[in-house]
Amino acid sequence: MNVDLINPFLKATMNVLKTMAMVVAKPGKPFLKKDPVALGDVSGIIGVTGDTEGSLAVTFTEPCIVSIVSNMLGEKFESINADIKDAVGEITNMISGDARRELGEAGMFLEAAIPTVVSGKGHSVDHISNSPTIVIPFETPDGSFTVEVCFVR
Amino acid sequence: MNVDLINPFLKATMNVLKTMAMVVAKPGKPFLKKDPVALGDVSGIIGVTGDTEGSLAVTFTEPCIVSIVSNMLGEKFESINADIKDAVGEITNMISGDARRELGEAGMFLEAAIPTVVSGKGHSVDHISNSPTIVIPFETPDGSFTVEVCFVR
Repeated sequence: MNVDLINPFLKATMNVLKTMAMVVAKPGKPFLKKDPVALGDVSGIIGVTGDTEGSLAVTFTEPCIVSIVSNMLGEKFESINADIKDAVGEITNMISGDARRELGEAGMFLEAAIPTVVSGKGHSVDHISNSPTIVIPFETPDGSFTVEVCFVR
Repeated sequence: MNVDLINPFLKATMNVLKTMAMVVAKPGKPFLKKDPVALGDVSGIIGVTGDTEGSLAVTFTEPCIVSIVSNMLGEKFESINADIKDAVGEITNMISGDARRELGEAGMFLEAAIPTVVSGKGHSVDHISNSPTIVIPFETPDGSFTVEVCFVR
């Protein structure tokens, strides 16, 4: 996998959360995904095709996403519901779009599928490919989340 | 969403399970997804782009996928592990590939991203789009599973 792909997703995540929810997401050091995986409560997943094929997953703990979406929609949420799932899909779509725009400016053409949102306490996400999955951990004032990217080349 | 897209995924699912695992999956009547959603223990998800954009999710209960993969790999599994997750990714990929080949023969060009596998007891899957999601329920001798497709046109 081309490591130049990682930074646009990191920057896009920070931009989207800042712009949409006024949340400062502080990135940690990206690492190769190995067992045991981080578990989350809600994940947005989107497939990407074009000059390479891959998938992007954004996985939140419940306190973290509840706080982000409360900020984003200006309404107080207590737990994951339909509005929060829709917002996770929108956030995933926007991170993908923002990163693909930057990659496009660098000459790499990528298209995105529609986002899928999975919810369930403590689920795990695996990208099924021979290529490594890169995990970018983020911290927010209300908890952590991860962005995972896996591309075949 | 174009209803002509549904049948190729139904047939592909039956073909893949028959060929790979000698499992006869009996399809029920496809229906529009509404709340409450069916819950599963492991899901394979793959994004699709090209002449339309969409996503495909194949969601299994644990007894159902344990039996399918035990048949597929000729080895007895008791619960969802890394081998089963890989097999779910492969099954998802093959259903997507088989359906896309048939759609391609009818003049509809689709590309697929890489599959993502989510595992977690009783998780739900939502396709985030204004288009309806179609659910195709299947029965096997060892339990049920569902194939969900959502395309923007």
